[in-house]
Amino acid sequence: MFEFQLVAKCPGTAARLGRISTSHGTVQTPIFMPVGTQATVKTLAVDELYEIGAGIILANTYHLNLRPGPEIVRKAGGLHNFMNYKRPILTDSGGFQVFSLARLRRITEEGVEFSSHIDGSRHFIGPEKAMEIQQALGADIIMCFDECIPYPSDYEYAQKAMERTSRWARRCRDCMSSDQALFGIVQGGLFEDLRLRSARDIVELDFPGYAIGGLSVGEPKEEMYSTIELLEGYLPADKPRYLMGVGEPEDLLEGVHRGIDMFDCVLPTRLARHGTAYTAKGKLVVRNALYAEDFGPLDPDCDCLVCRQYSRAYLRHLIKSSEVLGMRLLSYHNVYFLVNLMKGIRESLENNSFLSFRRDFLNKYQIKREENT
Amino acid sequence: MFEFQLVAKCPGTAARLGRISTSHGTVQTPIFMPVGTQATVKTLAVDELYEIGAGIILANTYHLNLRPGPEIVRKAGGLHNFMNYKRPILTDSGGFQVFSLARLRRITEEGVEFSSHIDGSRHFIGPEKAMEIQQALGADIIMCFDECIPYPSDYEYAQKAMERTSRWARRCRDCMSSDQALFGIVQGGLFEDLRLRSARDIVELDFPGYAIGGLSVGEPKEEMYSTIELLEGYLPADKPRYLMGVGEPEDLLEGVHRGIDMFDCVLPTRLARHGTAYTAKGKLVVRNALYAEDFGPLDPDCDCLVCRQYSRAYLRHLIKSSEVLGMRLLSYHNVYFLVNLMKGIRESLENNSFLSFRRDFLNKYQIKREENT
Repeated sequence: MFEFQLVAKCPGTAARLGRISTSHGTVQTPIFMPVGTQATVKTLAVDELYEIGAGIILANTYHLNLRPGPEIVRKAGGLHNFMNYKRPILTDSGGFQVFSLARLRRITEEGVEFSSHIDGSRHFIGPEKAMEIQQALGADIIMCFDECIPYPSDYEYAQKAMERTSRWARRCRDCMSSDQALFGIVQGGLFEDLRLRSARDIVELDFPGYAIGGLSVGEPKEEMYSTIELLEGYLPADKPRYLMGVGEPEDLLEGVHRGIDMFDCVLPTRLARHGTAYTAKGKLVVRNALYAEDFGPLDPDCDCLVCRQYSRAYLRHLIKSSEVLGMRLLSYHNVYFLVNLMKGIRESLENNSFLSFRRDFLNKYQIKREENT
Repeated sequence: MFEFQLVAKCPGTAARLGRISTSHGTVQTPIFMPVGTQATVKTLAVDELYEIGAGIILANTYHLNLRPGPEIVRKAGGLHNFMNYKRPILTDSGGFQVFSLARLRRITEEGVEFSSHIDGSRHFIGPEKAMEIQQALGADIIMCFDECIPYPSDYEYAQKAMERTSRWARRCRDCMSSDQALFGIVQGGLFEDLRLRSARDIVELDFPGYAIGGLSVGEPKEEMYSTIELLEGYLPADKPRYLMGVGEPEDLLEGVHRGIDMFDCVLPTRLARHGTAYTAKGKLVVRNALYAEDFGPLDPDCDCLVCRQYSRAYLRHLIKSSEVLGMRLLSYHNVYFLVNLMKGIRESLENNSFLSFRRDFLNKYQIKREENT
């Protein structure tokens, strides 16, 4: 079961307010999806995700295929049961990791043979296999297997990969049997004509949702924003749009501004593990000696459990002492920060105040950007 | 404020039921105190400790003296505020770590000069300094600075260290000004006459509580048990008795049996980080391939949150994938297991059924021991 409902459109921008319904519940869009790579949002327990207000979370097919393997997850009754997360889950196809993390790749029309980054063992994932694994994992939303190219890539390779991604998308669609929602992925690098051809190919296959892949891979932010803008008119308005692997607080605002409904990114938990926290006034490096005797909250503007209970001095001590609790508390706060930012964005869309919300947030977040709306 | 009340004595053994009252609340004894070495019980948040039912927790003076330093904790308003733990806290004196963890020790009558195990920097702790640091940390219960000898040690060294520990205990007592409760520590290795002389020396100084130090350092368990038995008659019945650094489930039962009221040990969290869980039927190595498709709870006899929410297969996956959540969940369960064991012990003491509780637990825990009660 999968349904997307467009609730409202922002008059001055492409921003949209929507609702995604699955058999594991309904979430509001635009939404940020925390990443639970190996069937756990790193350092956090599911009760904390509920407390934070997370809706959909993402898990990685590439990783779960290697460990514990799809068969164990299937026997557990799917990912929801395995990791005990009762809200919606999305799995990616493994494409991104196969092309970025795995080693000794051999790419053919059939799919990709590669070596595990863990133990070097040989594996194969192609469109059919990606669907088979994702069906065993049993997420509510699953993704087509795509060929992800690095940045920068030349036109010829971008074209070849985009065309293969379209052919693979058709094969993925032809494997569908369950009631999982399969999203198509638009590729094409930073080449306008390739992006438009990809969008046309993928939309033609009529998926319940569309993702923009291959962005946030090192290109200038303006290139990312303009690619989203370009595609906005070509992705069906009545289907959700998912910007994969994005992102930073400012990217969430810019993505929403350009019509994106769904985002995912490992940054909040990765930054946390390295001792950096989001705050309303920008990123804060907790390890900094400046905070050794700062007994105030991490982010005075935040009402999360961490900001209510612990001081910067304590968090700094934990991080400097390599204590797991430090990573946990920063991860909690960072995920809360983005989930809460999206909540603020949705409220602003309801009140027709998105542009001022965006301006106020970015001003405070000290991102020096022209007001180019 | 510190008060110990002896509530009941077990008719057939030396076991006691009691109550310790501090300005941070009252706890029942016998009690197991989880260890929060660096002002955090490793991987766990304070709300989880409350949920588990932890009473007193322990923090280490040696570690907190190095990081973040006592001055920062004092400025935070003491450990309770710094780490946001509102229940009673006990700090050790640093003695154990100075003699086991620190390097390049120079021991004099004044105290010990040593190199930090973190960065090699030179530090000094003696009785007065240990009290000064512990006063800055502000725990409810603090400990005398003692000389801890390794196992095995010869008589001559054991005697010298024991006598110095007695002299240091007096100097610690003479530093007391606050309303913290300072416990004396009995040393003397495995030599009966030294243990009895130490007990006499320390009891003479009239502390509000007495600890037995220098056990669980590698000696055979029977030696540990017989040392506790020996001291039982020499430690005042109206003061709490604390067996330092112990221990394993069976040691808690044997300690209570011999009149001990307080225990602490890093094992539950250390074992958890290495992927081992306590269960009613003994230790379980979660990483074992046996559990790869075991979708049952970690310990079917346990009603903790982890056993109610997650499967052995999932926990195994987390541990094998080095996910922090795995260590967290096992730490939670292991600490719960010991806290809950102590609750069972206290209930059995209330119902005059301690011996049968002990027998049933040990039988199930598969410890092959003679019923030598």
